[in-house]
This record gives sequence, structure tokens and C-alpha cells, in this order.
Amino acid sequence: MADYNAPLREFRFVLHELHDAPGVFGELPGFEEVDRELIHAVLEEGARVCEEVVAPLNRSSDEEGCRLDPEGVRTPPGFPQAYDALREGGWFAMATAPEHGGQGLPHTLEVFFEEMLQSACVSFSLYSGLTRGAYIAMSRHGSEALRRSFLPHMGSGEWTGVMCLSEPHCGTDLGLVRTRAEPDGDGGYRVRGTKIFITGGDQDLTENIVHLVLARLPDAPPGVKGISMIAVPKRLPGANGTLGERNAVEVSSIEQKMGIKGACTCVVNYENAAGWLVGEPHRGLQAMFSMMNHERLMVGQQGLALAETAYQNAARYARERLQGRALSGPAAPDQPADPIIVHPDVRRMLLTARAGNEAARALFAWVSLEVDVAERHPDPGRREEAGDLVALLTPVIKAYFTDHGFEACNLCQQVLGGHGYIREWGMEQLVRDVRIAQIYEGANGIHALDLVGRKLPMHGGRPIKRYLARLAGFLAAHRADPAMAEFTAPLEHAVADLEEATRWIGDAASRDPEEVGAASYDYLRLMGLTALGHMWARSAGVALNQVNGDNSGFYEAKLATARFFMKRLLPATGSLKRTLSAGADALMTMDAESF
Amino acid sequence: MADYNAPLREFRFVLHELHDAPGVFGELPGFEEVDRELIHAVLEEGARVCEEVVAPLNRSSDEEGCRLDPEGVRTPPGFPQAYDALREGGWFAMATAPEHGGQGLPHTLEVFFEEMLQSACVSFSLYSGLTRGAYIAMSRHGSEALRRSFLPHMGSGEWTGVMCLSEPHCGTDLGLVRTRAEPDGDGGYRVRGTKIFITGGDQDLTENIVHLVLARLPDAPPGVKGISMIAVPKRLPGANGTLGERNAVEVSSIEQKMGIKGACTCVVNYENAAGWLVGEPHRGLQAMFSMMNHERLMVGQQGLALAETAYQNAARYARERLQGRALSGPAAPDQPADPIIVHPDVRRMLLTARAGNEAARALFAWVSLEVDVAERHPDPGRREEAGDLVALLTPVIKAYFTDHGFEACNLCQQVLGGHGYIREWGMEQLVRDVRIAQIYEGANGIHALDLVGRKLPMHGGRPIKRYLARLAGFLAAHRADPAMAEFTAPLEHAVADLEEATRWIGDAASRDPEEVGAASYDYLRLMGLTALGHMWARSAGVALNQVNGDNSGFYEAKLATARFFMKRLLPATGSLKRTLSAGADALMTMDAESF
Repeated sequence: MADYNAPLREFRFVLHELHDAPGVFGELPGFEEVDRELIHAVLEEGARVCEEVVAPLNRSSDEEGCRLDPEGVRTPPGFPQAYDALREGGWFAMATAPEHGGQGLPHTLEVFFEEMLQSACVSFSLYSGLTRGAYIAMSRHGSEALRRSFLPHMGSGEWTGVMCLSEPHCGTDLGLVRTRAEPDGDGGYRVRGTKIFITGGDQDLTENIVHLVLARLPDAPPGVKGISMIAVPKRLPGANGTLGERNAVEVSSIEQKMGIKGACTCVVNYENAAGWLVGEPHRGLQAMFSMMNHERLMVGQQGLALAETAYQNAARYARERLQGRALSGPAAPDQPADPIIVHPDVRRMLLTARAGNEAARALFAWVSLEVDVAERHPDPGRREEAGDLVALLTPVIKAYFTDHGFEACNLCQQVLGGHGYIREWGMEQLVRDVRIAQIYEGANGIHALDLVGRKLPMHGGRPIKRYLARLAGFLAAHRADPAMAEFTAPLEHAVADLEEATRWIGDAASRDPEEVGAASYDYLRLMGLTALGHMWARSAGVALNQVNGDNSGFYEAKLATARFFMKRLLPATGSLKRTLSAGADALMTMDAESF
Repeated sequence: MADYNAPLREFRFVLHELHDAPGVFGELPGFEEVDRELIHAVLEEGARVCEEVVAPLNRSSDEEGCRLDPEGVRTPPGFPQAYDALREGGWFAMATAPEHGGQGLPHTLEVFFEEMLQSACVSFSLYSGLTRGAYIAMSRHGSEALRRSFLPHMGSGEWTGVMCLSEPHCGTDLGLVRTRAEPDGDGGYRVRGTKIFITGGDQDLTENIVHLVLARLPDAPPGVKGISMIAVPKRLPGANGTLGERNAVEVSSIEQKMGIKGACTCVVNYENAAGWLVGEPHRGLQAMFSMMNHERLMVGQQGLALAETAYQNAARYARERLQGRALSGPAAPDQPADPIIVHPDVRRMLLTARAGNEAARALFAWVSLEVDVAERHPDPGRREEAGDLVALLTPVIKAYFTDHGFEACNLCQQVLGGHGYIREWGMEQLVRDVRIAQIYEGANGIHALDLVGRKLPMHGGRPIKRYLARLAGFLAAHRADPAMAEFTAPLEHAVADLEEATRWIGDAASRDPEEVGAASYDYLRLMGLTALGHMWARSAGVALNQVNGDNSGFYEAKLATARFFMKRLLPATGSLKRTLSAGADALMTMDAESF
């Protein structure tokens, strides 16, 4: 099976050397104490838990999967015990507010733990990951009474939370939702309907599960403006914080899937189930977005997390597997063959995974810190700026990171040849597990539309203007530095491509919305590639300052990977710019019947 | 589950309108009778068999897989009956020589049947597909006695043939083979060793299986120049064509794999098994290449075949699934939502699959016809020319088609959103099944090395020079045609990129072999893309001549797909040319230990 070792050295580089996380936290009320030492201590202990408690579950998670018993869903062997261990260790309460019994640590710290959890066993990570999103939605939109009665349980992981959007006839288009919620005359609601694809819709990890269900009230206007969020717990809260009776929430079946088999995907029937409105009537989508924005970043991170595990295993295999000889002559003449890492094309595959992973982590850390800033910074202008960056880059992280994750897991599988295709080595499981990340939380194409259709025009284009200005500022600051030229020159090209493509999208939007849709995916890829290029140029800057006198090889490897990215991957922005501006005609002229 | 309908209209376009297959056959002794009508009749009946007899097995092939009983491997339910039906129908004997009881039809016709068989159930297709390769190797290299005793059985499908190369410590590097063959003093050999990853190493479809085993004779020189091919049947031939005793060929286990679960992948032990030398001592690799070259084309075709099935199912889903509205306003205002085919990005995914499939089929047909020409044409010059094209394009077909196939199956899975990830719709099976094609028959990176390291320098560069001249000739003939300009102009760019890249590789080869290795994969992709561009320009030329007065929509769709390819996919040659010439340093500087 695939092994996992938390990349703590990388975490330190990204959090301290690249982004100065302690400095950021120092400006945020309540986080002033979160210093380097605390960050280290939390991540090191988190690494131990993920490596020792969670990673060993990953194989059986896939082999055994979930099953539906008469009493409900059974998760794979070992899941309940591991869940208890992590809950008791306080790992699910890291970013929970102290008023709900949590540790009140930054979001950024929580998501770095989350990366390790996902790398170790992504199926397992989903139960707590979704709970975290539900906690956020409930915190922001729930009534005082709801918050008091639900959040201490959800914030500790004692209860889980799940999101219930899709129905058999609708997933992306939530305007078609048919589930109904009627007032029960007592301040609550009764929910009737069927939801599908509900991850964690039932499980045997916790006594209670809070379903956040999108439903229509009797007076709902049609479409997405008539959807409300109802909190429907599996068991009703009883008196004095005890658990009351079972609610009418029934799982009728679970899906057989390509991967993430330890994460049950349920069809859930609500048969007059009792629930409570979260937020305003008919504003359920807004409330759900609090959860979805969190989950979208989390799903984007899954691409990175699984690619990290895949990379580690493929790199080890390539260092150890003896086969053939280096093109320039035997590298290990005393051995029957050279390790396959001598081959340029094996290195191309590994470096494509690695270069994407390291820059994705750097970008993710930046955006995570800005999530904390957007929430806590005393300066409203700084909060707004941070919110703009997060809003703009959320679809890029969701879609670009998961596309990269899938590509990287496949390249790493390829490094193992036939051994990558059989189950024994665990690589094929990573490919199957990571594939869902491109699909759930909105298929990636939807995020491309979100980027061009909502995020670019948002606030008169303020987020994209700020982002482009940030890139231009970086280039201006480093353009004259000859040591940085090999990194800034390619980035300069990419940024110019992004600027040009952004103008093209703006012009097209005023002309024909189909043009924008036709360009959306390539535009997202172009922005993703440029954003990673920015992270690589910044990382290279840090590494150049540290490489002399370092004998660990860490900064040399950082620079080598940066050079690979600049020479081999970033130039694709040119052809993306060309193809995105090729026009919608190439897509739209064929009759639907001719497909 | 996924449905399959043989694309007979496309077959006719490619074979008759684009390549004039009957005209080619007319020049080949023995094939003069293979006219349009015969081709139609064979493919239509073949379509019926694949759709009705084979396609229904595909789901259970995956669900049930193979198992190893004490008596041997059991294939999935229905496989033996379907195998018998096809064998009795003569489908495995199409291209078998009449002297071995076959129909003596062209290779090209056989491979068009093969595409349908692979589309319908790729696991099932492997048993006969490998047999065909073994038949070819045995025909070319076997002694008179061996041919007489084995080929009538193998040529009808009464016996199967399998190839036995990999061992636990070696796959790509066959120089490390340890299996031994010792003369038995009676003209035969005794084989001892263990082979892994043997597809079809045992099964319950036929009474006998001929293992073509790579092994070392006692006096073998080290490395690949000391490998011989030994034919080791599961049961020894008895007197008068009967079957004799069981040979010492034992399957000790079968692999659990990501996909192609109906094709058993065996660990096979030869415990002093009786066998006969095929070809010259120590020239086994040469004999195996007769088989491998056939199988490489077949595996390349798998990419196309599975992408075809994926496309058909995704296109139907996109036409039927109602979700959201067209960006330009409701397309079906009387429905609750529009079919998702109205969205440009859904079309991008479908057209990427379709444009690759149709051009790949056109290229495959061309190369297949040249296989027939190389074998039969009375003019040695014409045979040589055909052989050059086949040799040059074999690695491109193996690697580029399978990469395309994997991308296409994934894009088509993506069209179905969450429904693509669950087993019910069959899309995720296609993704898992097609993944192996990038790995077996030589991992794709090996084919990129074969292309740049062997095929380009072959005969002083004759094959690539001829191919580039062919592309230049096509452009010269059509450059002045204004109707063709939208197709020839982008192709002109791509061909220029290919020419420049080819010169770069030639220069690099004289400088540093690592440079060639570092450029190999991007070069192969560049050639593949250009080769498909050539097919699209030629197809567009045919369609332009037919589109007026056609009311089937076929030629309009052909032109629309050609335009999509030219505008959206072909421009990537530019960035491939740039990245391949970025130098080996970007790959080679990092220490192996730093990975």
C-alpha cells in the first residue's frame, strides 16, 4: 500500500519562510499567541496522528468500503476507533470558537492539519471536513438558539454535519430542488423529499448527524430564490443537552463508486422529518455558500493532498527500482541496472507532480491566511482586500488543483508501470480516490463559469484588478534582480498572457455570453498556471537567499523544481491564451443532434 | 451501464471516402476481391456480433472479474459462451491465412472488427487480440513443424496465444530475464522460471494456450542478445492433432487490478515445462517484436475504442440531461431546464473526445492499410515506404492514442458529473479499463524513447523524412485552395513546429543523449497532434466536396469537428515545441536523493 510521511519541512518553508504566518497572525485579534513554536508543535503532533492513526486505515477503507445494515451505515473497520481518537485529541476542534469549546486556532492551521488528514485517508477526512463547513454555516446563519444547541456538539466532532443539495433530477441546477419544508406551527419545519449523493448521510462514528437540507417553503418563489436551508438532525436534541428521539431521516441506499469507498454516499429520504430554519427563508443558497466556499477550498486541497502521497511513493519507487541504464551510460555500474530515476522522462513525470504540489501548497497557504485575515483583521480595507483574493482564487483552487491532482496521481501511477495498475501498491487507489475531487462541490466546469461569470465582474472587477496589480508589483520589485531573471522573465510572459486574456474576456462579455463560456476553462487554467508561477518565483526568491551555506539540499531542490516549472510547465499559458480566444463558434455550431 | 453502437457510418467514411481501402486492396495480391460490398458486409455483421453478443458482457466482466480455482482461471460468466460463438462465426480467423483454415482477409478489416470488439468489452477482446499477435510471430519465425502443428489451432481461436516477458524484477529491461530453457536432447527445451503480468496466462475459453516465453539458453550471452523465444503450450500436442498431456505450466496467482478485470493477469510458473524454440537461438526479442508491433498498434487502438464508447454515452447524456439554462437564454423554454449540451464547456469536453477519436481512427486506418501494403505489395519500393510509415507511427499510435483515450474517457465521465463517478452508468469502468493501455505493451514513455532514439535515426532518417515530405506535399497541393485555408493554415504551423522540433532532436542527439530523452515525450505528443491535424485537414477536404446537397448532417458535423480541432487543440504544438527544446538541465540537475 502507499505510505505517507507528512512533509513538515515543506510546511515550515511555506508558512514561515514564504508567507510569515506568525507575522500575519500577530495582526489578528485572538491569534497573537500563534507563533512559530505553537505552529510547529501542532503540526508535528498532527503529523504523528495522521501517519500513525489515520494512514493505516486507507487500504481497508478501499477494500472494505461502507455497507448499509438495517441499523444504518457501517464505515470501514477501524474508522470509529480512529474517529474517537482524533475527537478526543481535540483535532476536530482546532478552529472551533472557544465559546463552543474549541481551541480557537486559525483556519490556516486547521487546513494544514487537513492536508495531512486527506493525504493519509481522504475517505476518513470527509466526515470531519464536511462537519467543519456545516459548523461555519451554522455559526454564521443559525439563530441564537440553534447555535447554542448545535454548535458545541458540531464544533468538537461529537456530531457531524452534512450538506444535502442534489436530488435525482438536479445537481448543478439547484433551482429545480423539489424537497419541501412546511412549518410545524411550533417554530420548526417538517421536511419531505429525497436527496442523493449525500456524503456522510449516515455513519457509525457519531451519535448524531446534522443534515443541512436545501428545501422549498410553501410560499417559496420558483428557482434558486426560493430555496431555504433547514437543519435536520438524525436524532432530535433532548432536554439538557441529551439526545432525544430518532428523526424521520432514512438512508435507502448507498452508492457503489469508483473510489473514496470509505466515505459513504447516501440516498436520504426525509419523511416528514423535523428541522429548523437556518438563516432567512428563501436565502438558503446564501447560507449554503458559507459551507460551500469552505468545502470548495477543502476539495481543491484534496487534489494537492493525494498528489503528495502519490509523489512520495512514486519517487521512492523510482529511486529503488532497477531497470535499464542511463542514456549517458551506467550510473550504477556495480548493479545489474540503474534506478529508473536516472531517466529524464521519469523525472519529467515526478517533477510535474512535485512542482504542482509545492506551488499549490504555497498558494493554498496564502489564500488560507487571507481567509483568516478576511475574518479577523481590524482594518476593514485589509479585510476587503483579503476577501477579494479568496473569492477570486476559490474557483481556481477547486478546479485547477483537482485537475493537477488527478494528473499528478496518474503520472505517479505511470512511474510504477504495471505495478501502478495492480492494487497491491496503492497507486491506483489514489487515482480513483482523487478523481471525485474534479466532480463534487461543483464540477470543475462550473467553477470556470463562476470565475469568468461572477468573480471577474464582481465589484466592478476589483478582485481581478487587485490580483493583477499584485502580480505586476511583484515583477516590478524583482525585475531588475539578475539572479531572479530566470524566474521573473517567464512569469512576465505568463502575466502578460493573463492580462491579455482577462481583457479578452471583458470584451467578449459585452458581446456574447457564449464567448465567455467557451473561454472559461482555458482561462481558469491560464490563471491557475500563472498563480503557481507567481508562487514559484516567490519561492525561488526565498531559496536564492538561503541556498549558500545550506547543506541539506532543500534549497537546491527548491530552485531545481522552480526552474523545471518555469521551463517546462509555465509556457503553456501561451497556447491557452490562443485557444481561449479562438471563439465560441468552434464549439457552438454543431447541432445538438449531431453529437 | 454504458451502451455501444458501432460507428459504421464513420467506418465507411474513413475506409472508402478518405483512404479508398478497396483501391489499396486492389493492388495487393490475394485481396483483389475485397471490395466495398464485402467490407460493408463484414463490418455490419461484425457490428451486430459486438453489440449483441459481446457488449452485454462488459458490466459483469468488471463486477465479477476472473477468479483462480484449483482447476485454473475462471473468466467472468458468459465469456466462454461468447468466445465460442465468435470462434464458430469465424471472427477470430478473418486475417488467418487460408492455408491455416482462415479467411485470408486484410489486416485492415480485422482491426476494424477489433475496434468494435474493444469498444464492446476490452477485457474480452484481449484473449483473441493476443492470440493474433502470437499467430503472427509464430507464422514468421516458427519452424515448418511448429507452424503446421500450432497455427491451424491458433489461427481459428481454438487455442489462444499469450506473450510472457515480464518477471518480478524486470519488465521494461528484458536484458534482466532469468527464466531458463535447457535443451531436452530431443529437439525441444525445458523451461524453468516465473513470469508475471501474463494477460490470459490461463483461462477457461479454450483447451489449450500457447505461451511464447522469453528465456535464456545455457549458452546465452548476457543481456538482450541472449534471449530466446520458446513456445510452451499448456497442453502438449498429441498424435494426429489431438491434445496430449498437461504441461508443467502453473498459474500461482492472479492480480487484483484497477480495471480490465475480465482479462486475467497471471503469475505463471514454468516448472521444467516442455517447449520448442521459435526462431533462432538468442534472437527471441526479434521474434517477440513481430508480436509486439502488432500488439502495440492494438493497444493504441484501445484508447480510441474505449473513448468511442465513452463519447457515445456522454453525448447521449448531454442531449438528455436537463439542468440549467443556456448562457444566451433558454433553449427549451417549455422544459424546466435546457439539456446540458447547450453549454460551451460541455461541448468542449465532448468535442475534445470526438475530434481525437475521429482523427485517430482515420490515422489508424491509414497505418493499417500500410501494414497490408508492407506485407503484400508487389513493388518492393512501395513495401519499404509503407514499412517506414508503420515503423515511425507505431510508437505515436501506442502512446498518443492511449493518452487521448484516457483523457477522453475522463472528459466524458466528467460530463455526467456525480453520475459519472458511480458504477451504475458505466463511465468510471471505462476510465479504469482504458488506464492500462498507457502502461502495458511498454509504458508510454518507452515509446517516446523508441520514437526519438530508434525510429528517427532509422535508415538515416528515411521514415521521418518521408513522413515530413508527405505532410509538405499535402500542404503544397492544398495551400492555394481558399476553401481549405482554415484547415491548411493551422496545419502549416503544426508541421513547421514538427520540422523544427525534428531538427532540434537531430542536433541534440549528436550533443547529448539526455537531451533527446528529456525532449522525447513532448516530441511524441507534437507528432501525434500534427498527425491528427493532417487527418483532419484531409477529412475536411473530403467533407467540403460532399457537404452541399447532403442533408444527413454528417459532413457538416465533420467540418464543425475539424474546425474545433484546428482552433482549439492543434495550437498546442507551439508550446510543445518550446518545452521540448527547454533542455535536459531542467530535469537532470536534481540529486536522486532529493526527490
